[in-house]
Amino acid sequence: MNLDDFLKPIDTLRSNGAMVHCISNTVAQNFTANVLLACGATPSMTTSIEEVTDFVNYSDAVLVNLGTLDEDRRKVCMLAVEATNAKKIPFVLDPVMCNVSKTRLKFAKEMLAHTPSIIRVNKKEADTLVQNIPTSNQCMAITGPSDLVVHNQSKITIENGHAFMSYLIAVGCAQGAVMAALNAICKNPFHAAGAALLWFVVAGEIAAEKSEGPGSFSSIFIDTLHEISIGNIASNARVK
Amino acid sequence: MNLDDFLKPIDTLRSNGAMVHCISNTVAQNFTANVLLACGATPSMTTSIEEVTDFVNYSDAVLVNLGTLDEDRRKVCMLAVEATNAKKIPFVLDPVMCNVSKTRLKFAKEMLAHTPSIIRVNKKEADTLVQNIPTSNQCMAITGPSDLVVHNQSKITIENGHAFMSYLIAVGCAQGAVMAALNAICKNPFHAAGAALLWFVVAGEIAAEKSEGPGSFSSIFIDTLHEISIGNIASNARVK
Amino acid sequence: MNLDDFLKPIDTLRSNGAMVHCISNTVAQNFTANVLLACGATPSMTTSIEEVTDFVNYSDAVLVNLGTLDEDRRKVCMLAVEATNAKKIPFVLDPVMCNVSKTRLKFAKEMLAHTPSIIRVNKKEADTLVQNIPTSNQCMAITGPSDLVVHNQSKITIENGHAFMSYLIAVGCAQGAVMAALNAICKNPFHAAGAALLWFVVAGEIAAEKSEGPGSFSSIFIDTLHEISIGNIASNARVK
Repeated sequence: MNLDDFLKPIDTLRSNGAMVHCISNTVAQNFTANVLLACGATPSMTTSIEEVTDFVNYSDAVLVNLGTLDEDRRKVCMLAVEATNAKKIPFVLDPVMCNVSKTRLKFAKEMLAHTPSIIRVNKKEADTLVQNIPTSNQCMAITGPSDLVVHNQSKITIENGHAFMSYLIAVGCAQGAVMAALNAICKNPFHAAGAALLWFVVAGEIAAEKSEGPGSFSSIFIDTLHEISIGNIASNARVK
Repeated sequence: MNLDDFLKPIDTLRSNGAMVHCISNTVAQNFTANVLLACGATPSMTTSIEEVTDFVNYSDAVLVNLGTLDEDRRKVCMLAVEATNAKKIPFVLDPVMCNVSKTRLKFAKEMLAHTPSIIRVNKKEADTLVQNIPTSNQCMAITGPSDLVVHNQSKITIENGHAFMSYLIAVGCAQGAVMAALNAICKNPFHAAGAALLWFVVAGEIAAEKSEGPGSFSSIFIDTLHEISIGNIASNARVK
Repeated sequence: MNLDDFLKPIDTLRSNGAMVHCISNTVAQNFTANVLLACGATPSMTTSIEEVTDFVNYSDAVLVNLGTLDEDRRKVCMLAVEATNAKKIPFVLDPVMCNVSKTRLKFAKEMLAHTPSIIRVNKKEADTLVQNIPTSNQCMAITGPSDLVVHNQSKITIENGHAFMSYLIAVGCAQGAVMAALNAICKNPFHAAGAALLWFVVAGEIAAEKSEGPGSFSSIFIDTLHEISIGNIASNARVK
């Protein structure tokens, strides 16, 4: 495993930018947009049936996040992934809390059939949604006390992180959006997913050191995502 | 009045946690979620007809906040309180600005008939919604320059607070969510409502001291909610 | 050009307040509300068909922002501008990203026909929406590396600003809301639009100096909007 394969796309995103259309939940939209901007990408966020295709066609990658999902949003997700597939750009699926609602789980499986390049989940969501993860031929990023990306024969485990990250809502949702941005830059989803995880957890550790609590962590985390060098990420990463 | 009856549930929430499903307005969702996490609870926020019952069944308490209300949201509120009543868990009603819109006032009265354990209001909303507050047999938390909780023969008045709290949108909405979290822990709604008020206004005073203005107050307030000890709340509380 | 014509309404807003009803996108709502409060105005944000007329009737000015627009929201915008026109209060139109979606552009033109007092746009949106800007008889505020307001024979160009402002989502959306608040105070839309621009870009420069990055900039910017004196704005303004 060559850490440079994960870190170089971060610098490319910073210099080249990427348009990311996010279909995301209303809780996470603002934070996700600010994180994308701090990371060098440009967000759009519309969730309307009449507009989503135009916005996907204007984008380099797409996030489909299933939080605060309703009937209209499901139609929008479907239109978005169809446009995404037609344009042959990557999309990241984040099936938030699909372990809680049967309706959401069913829809997450429909989205899965439209071949997201990366699936971002926590352990509970992963267990509900997918069987046999260790040999998944889809790129899965599974977050938790340690983070894991698996794709075909490849695997990376990342041990960094800080408790404040779990006190801040929408960190995971924003991470899915950054995976999409990196996947627009770096066609290999395994590298894109691993890069976003490394970026977040190393920045999270550094930001937590400077924070008084989970409130101040929020803005310092965005500052750190923006300023951290890939050399700094490399020297702090605890990966295997 | 024994202040410990109000303060002990705060520590219990911090150690045991509570799932709170929030049906809240899109302005307040992100801040409310971050406040709940800082206070030791875990939020969910879906507002979809097909999902809300599953999410309420996964929760320990529910917030029904009537901001940015529309026809779908009204159906969701109704499904949520039915599931809440069936599961015999508490729900908090926050009829935001029901004094401005007749449609909203009418719906707030329907919600009231479904027996919320706590009604969180400001003075204008209280006057519009309920007659004869001083002897209300429903637990009412009425916020303003001083905060008041009344329930049957019990009453507590809290004199703490700071002007910055009124410069920060969604403080009241988040407070309703924390009342729900505390009411999941402490079955007495009078104690749960009073505890949330004490926690907020004392933390608000302390955070304001450290803030440069209403912007920096936002994150320092969340830090303070997270770190303040119940001993510190007790020694700063101005109650009668 | 007399700078006082732009600056005096800022102090009047701070002392008198103004109710601003915002029909805005879900990404920008929270930040917009906090900015309005920091500037001395009071926001309401409902986007429901049954409630919007009551809320406009309770307000002194209205913002119509076309981000995250859908079919229901279009109906709400139409009801809002009808109530606005009936009540003879000003409304600001912000046709966010109308250059990307044909549906949105068509609707932006319908809104334009309802005579907004101010149109807030960036260069791309301006070029798509309006012909012959230099002699526009509608008050147009066009933001970019330098900001411009044109109205009939009047014109002001403002050279202040900082890169962090473009890393913070919803700055432009919030600015539209503050233009509405100032236009409630100061009936001349040219002065109201110019005042909001001056206030934002000078505060943005000062806040950026104190910030570690785009995350911490967010709260320091709100602090600065709240505390900056009009004398300080005047002495830092680079206008022609």
